[in-house]
Amino acid sequence: MNAHDRIEQALQAALALGEGTAGPPKLAAALRHAVFPGGARIRPQLCLAVAQACGDSDPGLTNGAAVAIELLHCASLVHDDLPCFDDAITRRGVPTVHAAFGERIAVLTGDALIVLAFQYLAHSARHAPHDLPGLLSIVAQRVGAPTGIVAGQAWECEPFVGLAAYHRAKTGSLFSACTEAGALAAGANPERWQAFGLFLGEAYQVADDIRDVALAAELLGKPAGRDIALCRPSCATEMGMHGAIAHFDGLLARAVGAIPPCRGASALRALVRAESERLVPEATVRQFALAA
Amino acid sequence: MNAHDRIEQALQAALALGEGTAGPPKLAAALRHAVFPGGARIRPQLCLAVAQACGDSDPGLTNGAAVAIELLHCASLVHDDLPCFDDAITRRGVPTVHAAFGERIAVLTGDALIVLAFQYLAHSARHAPHDLPGLLSIVAQRVGAPTGIVAGQAWECEPFVGLAAYHRAKTGSLFSACTEAGALAAGANPERWQAFGLFLGEAYQVADDIRDVALAAELLGKPAGRDIALCRPSCATEMGMHGAIAHFDGLLARAVGAIPPCRGASALRALVRAESERLVPEATVRQFALAA
Repeated sequence: MNAHDRIEQALQAALALGEGTAGPPKLAAALRHAVFPGGARIRPQLCLAVAQACGDSDPGLTNGAAVAIELLHCASLVHDDLPCFDDAITRRGVPTVHAAFGERIAVLTGDALIVLAFQYLAHSARHAPHDLPGLLSIVAQRVGAPTGIVAGQAWECEPFVGLAAYHRAKTGSLFSACTEAGALAAGANPERWQAFGLFLGEAYQVADDIRDVALAAELLGKPAGRDIALCRPSCATEMGMHGAIAHFDGLLARAVGAIPPCRGASALRALVRAESERLVPEATVRQFALAA
Repeated sequence: MNAHDRIEQALQAALALGEGTAGPPKLAAALRHAVFPGGARIRPQLCLAVAQACGDSDPGLTNGAAVAIELLHCASLVHDDLPCFDDAITRRGVPTVHAAFGERIAVLTGDALIVLAFQYLAHSARHAPHDLPGLLSIVAQRVGAPTGIVAGQAWECEPFVGLAAYHRAKTGSLFSACTEAGALAAGANPERWQAFGLFLGEAYQVADDIRDVALAAELLGKPAGRDIALCRPSCATEMGMHGAIAHFDGLLARAVGAIPPCRGASALRALVRAESERLVPEATVRQFALAA
């Protein structure tokens, strides 16, 4: 089974844990709406890729970690889209959860997805409970306070925030959860895989800043994207587009350099380079960005 | 150490897991605001009481379960108080989290508390990982979809809801988490303790309905409390006050009857009867309620 099918199948199994005829129908529909269809599933793909590079000795446990992280990511998107944050009406071309089901169901959907993530992780570790405290601790630390993605979002409520700390919490932390948990689920030392995840996550956030400005330049004819409109810290505004692209390339190189020796290291390096071209494609975004 | 001090000390240890100098200050302050000072801490008290009735063979694990449940309860209060739900400005005489820190921090505080609950549970089970999948599964099922407290809140967004299913999800489920997890942490069979928790939780919710009406009668001179104002299903409106009080007494009797044989059964029965008088005191609430 390829990674895409493996992830979608495990996500279906996780959602089934949170479903039943005795539950409120709107919440059940909103949970599915928040998870399917997904985006690139980049985080569970990364978790699987690291586990496979380390041998993937317990695929069920790897699936549990990958799916828990994706469900937590989906929860963060549902809450980030709320009126009090981004007030987004659509995501990936369909209505956001609060636009489709109302604000109350959107708050509860995020809550239920967080609970389901840990529930499915525990469910996947039934046969290997000795790994569960470590896996759960990694995932929880990278999501909660003081330095996980929830903290990253909370930095937006502070009068001052350093760009590196903000990017690390908002994006880097969950990427490092992927690499650390993927390694641990395959019996490898998670600490050695943390730097790879952090560099990759920071690169991903910088790529997002670059695309935000490049897309605005393309669509609006002026360099003002959503981050700027929302006064969020943005690498592209702090460093300029030339600086941001150089920073992205540097982070990618450091990520590749941080991959620990393992049997699947060369395949993993190739995957990261392919992902780099997907994130900031030479032919379109860079040219738009530099022309803007 | 008495149960009160034991719970407060374990809650402090849990909060410390989610704190650090590297985090955003408002989120850190809001997390403490949501947890301290607490109310009656009835859920962790119940979890401890059941564990003690069963021998309390692993106090650290009992603390982990009790604190996880209390943090999840605190998270639900923070989100229930949000403008899109109850729009409550004060709770226990102090500003609610969103009134004190803003709506965005309140959403994130609830999220961070849910994560912290599972993180502390895993932390408390480091030395006993074989019990963690079971404990985590009990707690997650009683909180999430389709039948936990999140589902209970989501029933308020449906056009029709049966009162028993609503009460069971909204309150009974977390009470049964307390009795089941308390039993499991002490090495007893959790299934045998479920009915006790469910009856107790339903009784607690009915008591809340009774007090809501009785308090409104006392303060406003008319029988219209918050549940009625918010069009929420209420036992007191469906059954009348006489019916609601009889229902409460019946549920308490069934709860006491559902306590499984164990070495601390008689002490536990006495505790439940004392709690009954605290919830619906003969001298005040019943008289007000029946006069209303």
